[in-house]
Order: sequence, then structure tokens, then C-alpha cells
Amino acid sequence: MNSFATTQLRSTELAQSISEAPQNYRVLTGERPTGPLHLGHFFGSIVERLRLQRAGVESFVILADYQVITDRDLMPHVREFVHGAVLDYLAAGMDPEQTTIFTHSSVPALNQLMLPFLSLVTEAELHRNPTVKAELAASGRALSGLLLTYPVHQAADILFCKGNLVPVGKDNLPHIEMTRVIARRFNERYATVFPEPEALITSTPEVPGLDGRKMSKSYGNAISLGMSPDETAQVIRRTTTDAERRITFDPQSRPGVSALLSTAALCMGEAPEVIAERIGDSGSGALKQLTAEAVNDFLAGHRERRSELAGDPGYVSQILKRGNERANHEANQTLDEVRMAMGTNY
Amino acid sequence: MNSFATTQLRSTELAQSISEAPQNYRVLTGERPTGPLHLGHFFGSIVERLRLQRAGVESFVILADYQVITDRDLMPHVREFVHGAVLDYLAAGMDPEQTTIFTHSSVPALNQLMLPFLSLVTEAELHRNPTVKAELAASGRALSGLLLTYPVHQAADILFCKGNLVPVGKDNLPHIEMTRVIARRFNERYATVFPEPEALITSTPEVPGLDGRKMSKSYGNAISLGMSPDETAQVIRRTTTDAERRITFDPQSRPGVSALLSTAALCMGEAPEVIAERIGDSGSGALKQLTAEAVNDFLAGHRERRSELAGDPGYVSQILKRGNERANHEANQTLDEVRMAMGTNY
Repeated sequence: MNSFATTQLRSTELAQSISEAPQNYRVLTGERPTGPLHLGHFFGSIVERLRLQRAGVESFVILADYQVITDRDLMPHVREFVHGAVLDYLAAGMDPEQTTIFTHSSVPALNQLMLPFLSLVTEAELHRNPTVKAELAASGRALSGLLLTYPVHQAADILFCKGNLVPVGKDNLPHIEMTRVIARRFNERYATVFPEPEALITSTPEVPGLDGRKMSKSYGNAISLGMSPDETAQVIRRTTTDAERRITFDPQSRPGVSALLSTAALCMGEAPEVIAERIGDSGSGALKQLTAEAVNDFLAGHRERRSELAGDPGYVSQILKRGNERANHEANQTLDEVRMAMGTNY
Repeated sequence: MNSFATTQLRSTELAQSISEAPQNYRVLTGERPTGPLHLGHFFGSIVERLRLQRAGVESFVILADYQVITDRDLMPHVREFVHGAVLDYLAAGMDPEQTTIFTHSSVPALNQLMLPFLSLVTEAELHRNPTVKAELAASGRALSGLLLTYPVHQAADILFCKGNLVPVGKDNLPHIEMTRVIARRFNERYATVFPEPEALITSTPEVPGLDGRKMSKSYGNAISLGMSPDETAQVIRRTTTDAERRITFDPQSRPGVSALLSTAALCMGEAPEVIAERIGDSGSGALKQLTAEAVNDFLAGHRERRSELAGDPGYVSQILKRGNERANHEANQTLDEVRMAMGTNY
């Protein structure tokens, strides 16, 4: 059985174990604050986090600001994107009592773990990481020291709070493997401090961007959660479809039409084929109108809560302050254990 | 004019400027706590630090514990070596009011600087660093992530306290260059936070080990500052010299004899040739006895103060605690400025 199949089987067992004993698990997830959160984030990760929250699992959500500069020079609007993400998390239903939302750059003891962890891996192992390879190729730049060491930051991000469960898509399995290797080597070399975290393969649907490619701010094909209904309708109206009046779901040959159908389907909880059938011969205009309405209906409650929360500008800062305090508390405690284990408690 | 000659000229100017305005300078120096401090450390760096202290310059001395594991798996006896180094610093005359002695692993905000700094350098630049190359070759191991990123830790070690003066031997010039590059790039990209530190080329004598190679604990050719007079005499008696009765100073063809002469000469403040002349035909036995007496006389005061300080086991801990508090205060302040500059103050 290959590694992915093994992990999938294990994910089924894990789901059972989580529902029986949620208190045994601590989840680490997060985002790079490179832009506003969009529907891809919503269906791709926020839904899963809310599911784990309802199951009673404690989570840490990292806003990985330093990861913004792994493959670019600056982090423009980072404060705006961080505050926006917190608004979206809260509007979506994350409970800040159960879920600690924090920013990477605010937790020095987490970042200090980089140094002992870097001693546990070789340069060759860093190079073998598929994300490092893929992001390097995508960035078209010389490999920065920060991108090269990305698997080690990620290990620190997960292990600082002794996270033992990391929801991932199947593409991200190798990251978790590196974190497990680092935890194992540390424990063997010094003393048992860290869990070996497990990947929880999430079966979240792939959310296509409006052009049929992966939804991504950098492709300009994303519907941000915080857009107004008018902006949403406008961005959907501007998408490229085709002249064929009959609407059918065919992602290969009709990417634009099918992306709209998928988007509407996710928001309406129906199959894209059923929606296509309903529109029939009414053409792209009708499809676009239906999709805009579906998205706006789906996000109406989210956006209302978001606006309300945004009305109190101090609130997000307060949530971040509390989250960062809690993350620092955890990180300081873990770093103290690391110092004991390494004999650097003077 | 080559880079070394330029730096030497600049060092002469610096010496003048330091004596005129010591308050404009802040020095960063330090040691890896891989063993007890020995005569090589004393003549090679402690003497220079005391000179700067007398000139009125503020210094930070880092006990770089994490650097121990750049080229080995564990850091055995690190607590003992750290405490021993503090005893030697104090016994030698370092004033903890003017000189902040601290341990690398105790200052999380210093270590956090690693992350933004790593984004400012490429992998290729890390590989070009001569120390990384040399230590990699010497270690005979696969390149660890920690050794590869060594020039970036060093930049963090210097810049966390805005150190602007680093006493180095000429071999260490490239390190300082990388720190200057990192400071410059950060300042250009975000906002001016860091000084571009300058190298102060020290004209300290090369202290040979007892076998004529560089004095190093790992070669087993070192006289520790904390040894007893008997241990000192014993380690000197065990050195390999030659059967020639006439003592002459000739490092090339008589490395053992010449190393003893150099050691005695440093301790007695005389030229090795003069001491050789005085011993004349009395042979290696007389040379060893003279050297042991010279070292023991030279270190008598140091060892007496060291024993006295060691008699109060809480004292070293207290010095480290105060040093670490002061280093953390500086690092937190600098990290706050870095956050302001990068826009990550949420």
C-alpha cells in the first residue's frame, strides 16, 4: 500500500478517534496573509476547521506573515490582510476561546525553535522538500535562505504548541513528514519533548477559480469573502465563458462555464450537473446571474457578521493580542522544556 | 588596495575614533562553549576585550551555545563550559556592568531575527561563506541546516544589540561582510534599523598549542585557564619536544620546543629567542620547567580570583541572569523596531 493510501486509511481511524476523544488532539493550521481570504479558503480549510471545532478539538491558527517573504521581497498590506483574515475566521464561526489565532512574527520562542531544529536536518533533506522545489520554480527567483528553510519553520509552527494533528491536502504530506522527522530526532537525541504530528487528510472539494484554474488571488480569479454583493456580481460577470447557449458541466472543454457551475454548486449544496440542467438553454448570462446570487446568498450571513465585527476596530486587535499571548505562553513553556532537554538551562 | 589592507587601515582610524568617543561604539564578541577557555582565548580575544573595556566601550559577549551543534550532534557539558567561561571572564577583569555576558539560547527575540534575515540572502550566498566551507570540510559530515545558515545567526548575534564593532582576526572578515549586507538590505527594503558593523582587526598574537598547531581543546594541546598549577606542569611535561640539548626558537623544524618558548614568552612578556638563549644547553626538561612556572606565575592571580568566584556557586548564575535580562531587553526593543519597519505590528 503506498504512503498516500496508508495515510488515507489512517485518516479514517483518526476521524473516529477524534470524535471519541477530541481532548487528545491539538490542531495546527494557518494561512499566509498574502491577500484577502476567498471562497477557496472557505471550502478548502475553514469548513474543516469548524468541523474540528464542533468536534471539541483545540486549534491553533497561524497567520504566517514571515512566510510571505519566502518567495517575494516585501509583505505589502500585511496588516490589512491579517486583520481581514481574523474578521473572516470570526464571521465564519471560529470561537476564539477554543481556537487560538496568532501571528507568526509575534512569538519569538516559536521562532527560536528554528535553531535547534536546523541542526537536526541536512541541507540535502531541505532540498528534497517538494514545496521548496515547487515554490522555487514558481517564484522564478534565486532560492532565498527563508524558502530553503521553510520545512523547518513549518516544524516549529506545528511543534511549538505540541500540535499533533495537521489537516492537509494530499499535496502537503511531505511537509508533515519532515516535521515528524525533526520531532523524532530531537526526542531521540535529547529527551522526549515533542509529539510526532499526524496528517489528517481532508476531503474538502477543490474550489476552482473563475477561470477554471485553482482559485488564487495572484491569478485574479478569486471571490473574496469580504467583497460586497455588487463586487461579487461584477467579478462574475467579467469572467470568460463561451457562446454556446446550452449550459453543460464539462471542466475539460468548458472551463469557464464549469467553474461557475462548481462555484454555484458549492454554495447551493447541489451537484453542478443539476444546476446546468436547470439553466438549460438560457446561456452564460443566466448562469452568471444564478452564480452571483448563489454566492451572495451563501455569504450573506458571513458578510453581515463580518461588517458588524469590522465596525469595532479594536476588536480584531484584541483577539490577536489574546491569541498572541496564548501562543507565547505555549511557546515559552515548550522552549523551557527544550532548554531542559538540551542542558541549556543555566 | 585589497580588502584586507583597506580594513587594516580602517582599523587604525577606528582605534583613534574609539579612544576619542568610546560611547559611539558597541562591541559584539563571543565564544562557542565547546570546552574550557584556554590561553589561546586569553591572548587571542580576552586581552582585546579588556583593552576595549578600559577604553570605555560597551560590549556584549555571547556564549554561542547553539553554535556548538552546527558541526556536531550534541552539546555535552555545555552548562559547565558556560559557567567556566563566565568565571574566566570575571577573573580576567571583565566588568559585568559594562560588559553584558549572555547565552545565545536565552534570547528568543535575537533568534527570531533569523527569519527576516534569512529572506535577505540567497542559498548561493550562504554557500560562498568561507567559514561554512571550512567547517563543513573539517566536520566530515553532511552540511546541517544550522551550519549552512551560520552567517545569518551571526548577523542576528551582532545586530540584535545594534553592535557596530566586531573585533576579528583577518580570517573572519567575510562574516562581518555578510552581516553588513544583511543590515544594508534590511535598511533599504524596510526602514533604517541597523548599523553596518565594522570589523576591528585585532593584532593579537597567534598562541600555538603545545604541539605547535593552533591551540584547541579538540587537539588536546591546550592549557586551560582554570587548570591547577600541577595539571599545568603535567600537561607541559607530556609534550613532545626533541633530544637536542641546545634550545633554539625555530617553529618550522622544532615545533614542540618552539611552542613552549612561545607560550613562556607570552606569559613573561619577553621574546622567545631571549628565553631560548637563557636556557642554552639545559635541554627540554629545563624548558618545560621554565614554561610551567611562567604559565603558573602568569595565571596565579587569575586562578585565585577564579577560585574565589567559584566558591559562590550562585554568583555565576546571577551574572548570567542579569546579562540575559539585559540582552533580552535589547533584543525585544530591536525586534519591535523590526516589526514597525516590516509592518507586522498588529
